[in-house]
Amino acid sequence: MFQFFQYNWQVRDEWLTLLKDIPPDELLKERVGGVRSILYTFFHIIDVEYSWLRCINGKEDVLFDYSDYQTLDRIQYLSNQLRTEISATFPHDVPIDKQVFIPWDSSHQNVTAILHHIIAHEIHHIGQLSIWARELNLHPVSASYIGRKF
Amino acid sequence: MFQFFQYNWQVRDEWLTLLKDIPPDELLKERVGGVRSILYTFFHIIDVEYSWLRCINGKEDVLFDYSDYQTLDRIQYLSNQLRTEISATFPHDVPIDKQVFIPWDSSHQNVTAILHHIIAHEIHHIGQLSIWARELNLHPVSASYIGRKF
Repeated sequence: MFQFFQYNWQVRDEWLTLLKDIPPDELLKERVGGVRSILYTFFHIIDVEYSWLRCINGKEDVLFDYSDYQTLDRIQYLSNQLRTEISATFPHDVPIDKQVFIPWDSSHQNVTAILHHIIAHEIHHIGQLSIWARELNLHPVSASYIGRKF
Repeated sequence: MFQFFQYNWQVRDEWLTLLKDIPPDELLKERVGGVRSILYTFFHIIDVEYSWLRCINGKEDVLFDYSDYQTLDRIQYLSNQLRTEISATFPHDVPIDKQVFIPWDSSHQNVTAILHHIIAHEIHHIGQLSIWARELNLHPVSASYIGRKF
């Protein structure tokens, strides 16, 4: 499972690099589908990943305010900051069938379902970015897993 | 790993059902990004999954001709047919670090990288479909892993 997180992080970083010279209004522009903008896609991916991993680790959710993350630099800062914590606390040794409490819908989910969910969530949204990138005449970051080193 | 295949297959089937009343010209229409059309996206996902799994199982690749699969019914038929074989021959017991030969680029890859690759490949392309679905005023199939039963 952790290899998929490494894949997602590497792809995410490549996207943040690819987009660094795109004008802010294009990053914030409301688009059709997905979560409506390129910048918000990153915020959403990062926020969702962190929230679910906090659940697995039995920690309270932390709410981030999107208005504090309106540039790619701020997004990259948040991504790096949370990744450090996630890497240090990743549930490598938590039993995959352990049930954990999900405060935002008062349910319980098992660890393996949550990890699958986080992984698929980011890959799905990155697929959406790849369509929007073409609208900006950019060549999208490769989604290939084969050929990457972690 | 197999759970991700079950997720991808369930999501794929839900997409094929969602799109069954969409006019053929919309399915075949060339779009911006991805692999250019909705119908070809399915063909590509199915073909790629099968080819890599054939490599893992040491079997020769089978080439399919897209011109034989120009309707959703034909795509669903291909998907079902190959899924039966894939389910029966899934490499549950193959060592994940086993190196297998990839004929189309004369390289070797290990089984775990190939399985990660297949999984990410389909989720990525389905993310692209979700943008195109909005262009057709459709509500996309949920990409959520949480809440599904396999």
